[in-house]
This record gives sequence, C-alpha cells and structure tokens, in this order.
Amino acid sequence: MHSVAEAVDRQFDALLAIPDDTRERLYAAMRHSAIGGGKRMRPLLVRASADLFSVAEVSSLRVGLAIECIHVYSLVHDDLPAMDNDDMRRGKPSAHKAFDEATAILSGDCLHDLAFSVLVDEMTHPDPFVRCELVKALALASGPTGMAGGQMMDLIAETQPFDLAAVTRMQQLKTGALITFCVEAGAILGRVPPEARMHLYGYARDLGLAFQIADDLMDVDGDPEKAGKTLGKDVAAGKATFVSLMGVERARAQARALIDQAKDHLRGYGREADLLRAIADFAIARDS
Amino acid sequence: MHSVAEAVDRQFDALLAIPDDTRERLYAAMRHSAIGGGKRMRPLLVRASADLFSVAEVSSLRVGLAIECIHVYSLVHDDLPAMDNDDMRRGKPSAHKAFDEATAILSGDCLHDLAFSVLVDEMTHPDPFVRCELVKALALASGPTGMAGGQMMDLIAETQPFDLAAVTRMQQLKTGALITFCVEAGAILGRVPPEARMHLYGYARDLGLAFQIADDLMDVDGDPEKAGKTLGKDVAAGKATFVSLMGVERARAQARALIDQAKDHLRGYGREADLLRAIADFAIARDS
Repeated sequence: MHSVAEAVDRQFDALLAIPDDTRERLYAAMRHSAIGGGKRMRPLLVRASADLFSVAEVSSLRVGLAIECIHVYSLVHDDLPAMDNDDMRRGKPSAHKAFDEATAILSGDCLHDLAFSVLVDEMTHPDPFVRCELVKALALASGPTGMAGGQMMDLIAETQPFDLAAVTRMQQLKTGALITFCVEAGAILGRVPPEARMHLYGYARDLGLAFQIADDLMDVDGDPEKAGKTLGKDVAAGKATFVSLMGVERARAQARALIDQAKDHLRGYGREADLLRAIADFAIARDS
Repeated sequence: MHSVAEAVDRQFDALLAIPDDTRERLYAAMRHSAIGGGKRMRPLLVRASADLFSVAEVSSLRVGLAIECIHVYSLVHDDLPAMDNDDMRRGKPSAHKAFDEATAILSGDCLHDLAFSVLVDEMTHPDPFVRCELVKALALASGPTGMAGGQMMDLIAETQPFDLAAVTRMQQLKTGALITFCVEAGAILGRVPPEARMHLYGYARDLGLAFQIADDLMDVDGDPEKAGKTLGKDVAAGKATFVSLMGVERARAQARALIDQAKDHLRGYGREADLLRAIADFAIARDS
C-alpha cells in the first residue's frame, strides 16, 4: 500500500509540474488536493486486479493515477459550499478553503481532463484498442451513469426519504461504479474478454457496498482526527444511510458478510488474488 | 449551419434521454443547457475541416457533439456565482438559476464525461487509434493546457493588469484551444499526418483570435437581446480585453486582418475549403 501511494504521489508531482505563468495558482490548487494524504485504495485495487493477469506494472500505475485524478476531482467538487460544504479533507483545508471557490471548481475540472489524458497516452498501454476500452469504462463510471449520477441522488436524499433499495442504488453509482472500474481495469489491461470478468464484477460489487457501509459506520463512530474529515454529517443532515436504516450492529454484520462473499468470488484464483483478498479485509477494518 | 445545429440538438436529445429515477433533475439540467439556442459554430467547424478529407458525416457529427458537450459544460461552470456570475445564457436563465448551484456543477461535470464517452465510441470512428488521437487532443484542448487554463488566467485578469501579449495568450487557451481542436479533428478523422496540418493550425489560430476580438467588440457595442447574454461585463469589471487595449477601431481592423490571414492559409485548397472560408467571414460578422 505504501509503495503504491508513493508511486501515485511521484506521478502527480511530475504530472502537475507548475508552469511559469498565471496558471501557477491552478496547478498549486491541483497539487494541494492531489498530493499526499490519500489511502490510494483505488490504485491499489487496479494493481491487485492487474496482478491476476500479469499486466506490466507501469500500466496499472498509470490507470491508478487516472482514477485518482477522477477521485480527487470529485472530492474537490463535492466539498464545495453548494454541495456538501466540507472545510476539511484528508486532514487539510479543502480546496475552496485553501484557495477559493472558482479555483477549486477549475482545479477539479482540470483533474477531470487529466484523467483522460493519462489513460489515453501510449505510456498506459501500447494497444489503442485497450486504451479506448479504458476511456470508455472510466467515462461511464464517473459520469451520469456512475459517480456523478450517484452524487445527484445523494443530494436528493437530503430532501427525500430513501429506503434501503434507494440507498443501495445510490451508493452503487456514487462509490461502487469507480471501485468496479478499478477491478475491471486489470481485466481490460490483461485483455480478458468480458464474459470471463464476471467473478471480478461480483467481487467489486460486494466490496463497493461493504466499503460504503464501513464509511457510514465511520461517520457515526469514527475518530475525526484519523479520518481527516468532518464526521457525523449524515446524522446531522437526517440523511438515510445504511447505518440509519439497518442500525449499527446489523450494518456491521452486513459489511462482514459482503466481504466474505466478495472473497468467495475469488475462489477460482490462487495466491495471485491474495492482494484482492487483503484489500477486501482492509475495506472494513480501516479508520480513515 | 441550421442543419448542423438541428443534428446537434437531435443527438443531444438522444444522448440525454431522461432516466426513470432520482437522476431526472440532473438530466433535465443537462438538457436545459445543451439543447437549443447555440450557434453550434464548433460542430460546423469540424464538419468544414472534415470536408477537406472526405470524412464520413457521422464521424464529424459525433465529434461535433463531443465538442459541444465540452463547450456547454464550460459555459455552465463559467456562469456560476463563484466564477463569472452570469444569470443569462443563450437567452435563458443559466443552469444555476434555472436549477441550483449543486445541480449546475454536477450537470457540467456530467457533460464533461459525456464528451469522452461520445468520442471514444465505435460510432465515432472504426479505428481505435483515431479515437485515441481524438481523446488525447480534446483532453489537452479542454484541460489546464487549454480552455480551463485560460479560464484561470481570465479570473486572474480581474485583479492583475494584463498587457496585449498576456490577453492574447489567455485567449489562445480559453477559446483558441477548442477552436483549434475543431479544425484538427477533421485532419485526425481523415488520418492526415501532423506535418500536413500546418496550414489548418494557422487558419485555426487566426480564426480563434479574430473570433475573440469580435466577442470583445460585442461586449462593448452588441445587442444583449440578440447576444442572449449579459454584455458590458468586461468594461464594468475593468478587465483588459483586446478592445480596451487597442480601442474599437484598431480592434475591428485587426479582426478583419486576421480573417484575411486565416483564409490565406487555405489558399492551397479549392472549393472543398469554401465552408471554412465562410465560417471565417461569419466569425466577425455575427451578432451573437
């Protein structure tokens, strides 16, 4: 985990070299949000799924960088006053507090573009067909059919009562789609045909939900110091979450059951899937 | 021009079909900003440059749609209160007025993703290498090295004195990069090697600057009814523009000279470049 996190920081440092003109502030804002502090669980997931198919490390690292561009852009925009209005992120002031709202919006937009620039570059994979598959899958996972669509549902959950099915659907888009892409990316890089990816999709779906339940549990009883972000917000907003709908004990049991199920999808694999198994255990044991 | 505009609206209508769930509002916001009212000069430019190389119409229309996704997303974000704070766009309330700020931000983010979804789809071009080239060029033109970088410079121009060189550089990024991509796209679709695109880059550079000077002139003496947006904002903000730095008469002459120069880059082409020539004339004769 540490080596992947360091590699992501190193790549961001090179990608976001500050230019010698008035865009300096824009790059400084991107660096503020992108470098340091993240768990980089998503790039680790790409690496773990790429391990199954003996994919070159440079490819999985580049895809991991692209996903972090998307993940970070979404945090920057979600933290804006008009959205979740969060002043802290990864233990630092969020982008609009450290800079200003306009710079935060633009820095998110730029990271959004950089994700696709990184993916489509020859360095990511020599085969343009593979690069196209990656771009297509990431755009679906991050746009209205994925993460951003889920964020819209989340905003509406503040004013409408959501039941368990609606919360599940919302989270499958908001956090699940990008987690699924991470796992799918290893298969795309390894040129594994779609019909042979079913176990991985099953793993990703269960992992994504368990990950989100763990997040909801953290919102209720986590340590804000360790989490590096404001906690207790969902309760304060009276928003339906897995925990508010199931209770702490049932939610915790459900997360554990989902992780067992996720690992069960990997039973056809040997030691090469150990990293995927370890990530599954980590997803519900983390404190940030 | 009308037939391209109608084709863009038709494509947006299909792309943005409203789903039967709580994302309805997100799609409604995208439709509000994307459908109707635009000149669609950028898709027309793609078609015009594709005409030079006998590219299939379906390809140039799809690329035009992708560019409009980027153009519209940038208008939605630029109009936000934290950015240019504009309440009117294309004769309608801007997205954050018609909906709300959070929905506007998200709808822009979603159009941003859709641009890449559209480009990378097989329907745009059968050859994945061509699709990768398109994605790469669009990401460069819209991100920190292009449009969004220029918007950052524009925000800084509100607080720092910009000279003519700085305004030119800012506009080359803010509006020029995307206009250049439109013209470049025809060459990418036609598989014209980079070294044979020099005349087109020259045309695009001159056209982009002339287009922006015409915009600055419109801001000073245009008809807000016809323009469909707030005018006089640059003067009110005391911002350096081509017109404030050169004066109305010199700016007008400069725009005309640039258009002559743009058309001169096309002298090696025959009738097949007539649409590019007509667009150049239109760029400085328009009232919206």
